[in-house]
Amino acid sequence: MRRTRGYQAVDDHSPLEPGVFERRDLRPDDVAITITYCGVCHTDLHTIHTPVADGGVFPIVPGHEFVGTVRAVGPQVTEFSVGDEVAAGNIVDSCGDCDMCRVGQENFCRDFPTLTYGGTDRHDGSATMGAFSDEYVVRDHFVYHRPAALGPAAVAPLMCAGITVWEPLRQNDVGPGVRVGVVGIGGLGHLAVRFARALGAEVTVFTTSESKAGDLRRVGADHVVVSTDEEAMTTQLGKLDVIIDCIPVPHDLAPYLRTLALDGTLCTLGYLGPQSVDIVDLLIGRKSLSSAGSGGRRHTQDMLDFCAEHAIVPDVEVVPSRQVNEALERLSRNDVRYRFVLDMADLAD
Amino acid sequence: MRRTRGYQAVDDHSPLEPGVFERRDLRPDDVAITITYCGVCHTDLHTIHTPVADGGVFPIVPGHEFVGTVRAVGPQVTEFSVGDEVAAGNIVDSCGDCDMCRVGQENFCRDFPTLTYGGTDRHDGSATMGAFSDEYVVRDHFVYHRPAALGPAAVAPLMCAGITVWEPLRQNDVGPGVRVGVVGIGGLGHLAVRFARALGAEVTVFTTSESKAGDLRRVGADHVVVSTDEEAMTTQLGKLDVIIDCIPVPHDLAPYLRTLALDGTLCTLGYLGPQSVDIVDLLIGRKSLSSAGSGGRRHTQDMLDFCAEHAIVPDVEVVPSRQVNEALERLSRNDVRYRFVLDMADLAD
Repeated sequence: MRRTRGYQAVDDHSPLEPGVFERRDLRPDDVAITITYCGVCHTDLHTIHTPVADGGVFPIVPGHEFVGTVRAVGPQVTEFSVGDEVAAGNIVDSCGDCDMCRVGQENFCRDFPTLTYGGTDRHDGSATMGAFSDEYVVRDHFVYHRPAALGPAAVAPLMCAGITVWEPLRQNDVGPGVRVGVVGIGGLGHLAVRFARALGAEVTVFTTSESKAGDLRRVGADHVVVSTDEEAMTTQLGKLDVIIDCIPVPHDLAPYLRTLALDGTLCTLGYLGPQSVDIVDLLIGRKSLSSAGSGGRRHTQDMLDFCAEHAIVPDVEVVPSRQVNEALERLSRNDVRYRFVLDMADLAD
Repeated sequence: MRRTRGYQAVDDHSPLEPGVFERRDLRPDDVAITITYCGVCHTDLHTIHTPVADGGVFPIVPGHEFVGTVRAVGPQVTEFSVGDEVAAGNIVDSCGDCDMCRVGQENFCRDFPTLTYGGTDRHDGSATMGAFSDEYVVRDHFVYHRPAALGPAAVAPLMCAGITVWEPLRQNDVGPGVRVGVVGIGGLGHLAVRFARALGAEVTVFTTSESKAGDLRRVGADHVVVSTDEEAMTTQLGKLDVIIDCIPVPHDLAPYLRTLALDGTLCTLGYLGPQSVDIVDLLIGRKSLSSAGSGGRRHTQDMLDFCAEHAIVPDVEVVPSRQVNEALERLSRNDVRYRFVLDMADLAD
């Protein structure tokens, strides 16, 4: 077994603690990655603080969007070599055999994808431990070459936040002439703005705070609408084709549905749970409510290629990994523009 | 004014009563239609029994899917002549100027379309009275030539039930290779089956009753699944691309959402109100929940042309108009296969 250092939650209310745990020895198709940077996702907060609801068992090591350097490979690995700069996301395995896996949507694997942490390894039944740690061992299929042109720390959030907004933008054919709205500007939302803009769309951002307007334009918004301003919202009626809604808590969808044009779609990504929707708000204009989550291997590679070509990265605040609890606490207050990334160098000290 | 005989609701609980009321004299673009047949829609029941919630005022004359013969035309009418066999549906006017009207979706008119009954005329402010009557006066734009090849009584329900299911089928590109599910087999549902089949799709019908299977195959179902049979439902997981859900009351969407394949859509038509949906049921497979209602002039004409070409009509039970209350009562118990149509001949006696 491989000795790993990381940060673990031992219960649902204490700060993460530094600790040591074991990862498996490499299987023939495994890659061992020395983790250099790992993003901090809202899911990490959610999982740490509501583990029972998610079936989790302590200890939990969070972290599922990371980059690093290949330290070792199993004998069947042909795609990666020691020293390669790589990235991985929130899925580390899948059945490979169901209809979803066969079309490259391993994120929807009928046998459920193996998650990077809080999952169960398909071979030895062990609990997966996340990337708030110095090394990860992962099946080669779920490792990606890190685009050399992009800064490593900023690539980490692409592996979860990035692919999560990329999929619905591509699925809804966002491109020139398409009017995209983005609601909820955090790690996901600000990447949705950048992607949509780079795809050629016209981008409207909804915010509760007028004071953020300047920064949202810097990120790439063509228009900024203060969602609490009823008059401003009225001017947006029927204006948008696709809305990417990244708000991570239940909220009233109706004001946003009304900004959709004929046959428009609102895709909600940030909140997963029961949501009330008035069917009349869908009927008027023949609208759709949809959702999506993460992405498969093919689209993840597409997204990385697109980011490399268009020099797209998120705005990140990089902090030493020992500040993980401060980062989580600030994230819980939305006090970050727009994604924390842990620098794992201090774990090697 | 034009003296009209019809059936009216005088309050929200009494049977409809025969009565006499007045319609406007013809305006330059008006058509007066001698009504021969009028379908009985679930909306009629709903409107009669919950008028306050819908802002209705008594008396109400229901009826909004009808056929008849042109009796008179205003001087500007060029498309219709006295004696023409025509049809009309649940919309009798719209602003004609908004984005929705301009693209032929008068059903979503921003200024709200004028409904065939329970609406307010855009010119004189009078309440519109429906087609459970011997004559209707309607703006020529919302009159359609009745396909000569189809029986007149059976055409009536096409004007509401027909267009309501036609729109989402066309919007979702239903055709060869598309797997369509239909839930809720009444007036709308059985037409959805016929349309989808004629469009080349493979059609699965969900029913609560095994005993209906034979009849549903006669209507056009390729497959019949008993929705209360959990094992049968399990075999359907991920099998469908588009579901047309015609159930007119709130119900759990989750079992049907699970039968959708990747990027599938469930379009709910029968119930309009708050509906709870678990976002995770949309996320897994990147699915959509949508709705639609009625259709504009262009699609209504397309639908009639399609029905004429493919000899599609609903199964109707034609009853003399004096039996309207019995028909409404039986409809409330779903005791009709699959649409009642009132024969208005007895009103002329």
